[in-house]
Amino acid sequence: MTRYKVILEYDGTDLIGWQENRQGPSVQSIMKDAIEQFCATRPDVIAAGRTDAGVHAVAMTAHFDIAGDHSAETVMRALNFYLTQKPVSVLGCEIVSDDFSARFDCVARHYKYVVLNRAAAPVLQQNRVYWVPRKLDVDAMRRAAKKLLGNHDFTSFRATQCQAKSPIKTLDKIEITQNGDEIVFEFSARSFLHHMVRNIVGTLIEIGLGKPYDIDEIFAAHNRAAAGPTAPAAGLYFIHAEY
Amino acid sequence: MTRYKVILEYDGTDLIGWQENRQGPSVQSIMKDAIEQFCATRPDVIAAGRTDAGVHAVAMTAHFDIAGDHSAETVMRALNFYLTQKPVSVLGCEIVSDDFSARFDCVARHYKYVVLNRAAAPVLQQNRVYWVPRKLDVDAMRRAAKKLLGNHDFTSFRATQCQAKSPIKTLDKIEITQNGDEIVFEFSARSFLHHMVRNIVGTLIEIGLGKPYDIDEIFAAHNRAAAGPTAPAAGLYFIHAEY
Repeated sequence: MTRYKVILEYDGTDLIGWQENRQGPSVQSIMKDAIEQFCATRPDVIAAGRTDAGVHAVAMTAHFDIAGDHSAETVMRALNFYLTQKPVSVLGCEIVSDDFSARFDCVARHYKYVVLNRAAAPVLQQNRVYWVPRKLDVDAMRRAAKKLLGNHDFTSFRATQCQAKSPIKTLDKIEITQNGDEIVFEFSARSFLHHMVRNIVGTLIEIGLGKPYDIDEIFAAHNRAAAGPTAPAAGLYFIHAEY
Repeated sequence: MTRYKVILEYDGTDLIGWQENRQGPSVQSIMKDAIEQFCATRPDVIAAGRTDAGVHAVAMTAHFDIAGDHSAETVMRALNFYLTQKPVSVLGCEIVSDDFSARFDCVARHYKYVVLNRAAAPVLQQNRVYWVPRKLDVDAMRRAAKKLLGNHDFTSFRATQCQAKSPIKTLDKIEITQNGDEIVFEFSARSFLHHMVRNIVGTLIEIGLGKPYDIDEIFAAHNRAAAGPTAPAAGLYFIHAEY
């Protein structure tokens, strides 16, 4: 068996997320289908992050095993052939050692969240951004964001169905940049809780709209209801996995 | 009657282009429908550029007349309400004098053309870029592009069905920038011939792939067949109209 590490771009709009199940097409099921068409076996495909329905990836890392010794180039070309017209594309492929894990060896995960802040609805960026028509106070969001940096109990920003053992995470980066009508939130951490990025963005947007949310109070509450709503999936992108 | 100048964003993918006809939905017909729903009249809508099927706009300028004295804000909100879920959005609206023409008063038109130059097919940018899997020589394209600048007889880059009286145009800007896998071509001129930008890009891409096209010879031929193929519509964007 040879282990391949791949870099995937995907459009999550019509997918149920990373994880394969019977509810509909997933990134994992589409990848397994392509591998099966290529080599008539259906190995598991493990990703750095199991993104939710509607969430995109600019560059998700994953790995899988195939019998034989196909070159990385051959595997990439074959998979892209079978992925034609699918919402998943293989941007890179390399052979890695048998003990490499896209999931467990990942030391940092990077996400971005894109908000379109203008009166008119998105057209060219439909399903690619979260549209907020009312003017956001970016400075207020930046001040609040600073308080989220570092090691905290993120219980208040964690989905109620989150299965992580501990709610303690270290947020290494949260940066907000504005480029015309677009506001981009960048996040980095070793790992995230379920819905953590979207719950943080949803809370920061409430703050940007002038709502009286206080990050210290939200942390202290240890209660999901203390934070803002979950921002929609369409604005979220998995950007990069570090090893 | 009050004349309104509007700035439009549109996704040309499923449209037959700017111009209304019976073949399918157009930017013009969608705008006329929205105006009709708002005020029960169906005035003509005149644009700075009549883009082709599949071509997008980041900011197209257009004008039309409506009876009464609705504020620009009211017209923009009303049209965007009736444009909900349509591939057209009104980014700005202002009242202009009765003799303003989005078409005839335009002194410069700006376009961009976006190429995705990588092995893997586009997923997040599907219908937004022209995918060229083979590596392009950007320097060779830049050298050729310089020869296109200025006043020329662009017969060889003009669609055979082009109805302009003269093939003489002045290309004021042609710039090629590379950002990762993306190559962006920017064009500015007072006006363009039919398919002129796409025919230039199609030719530059051939040059970028190493084909022996020579711009001087193409100009001298005065023959569409001397230049390269027409690049696909999906990569082309109307960016800005100057007045």
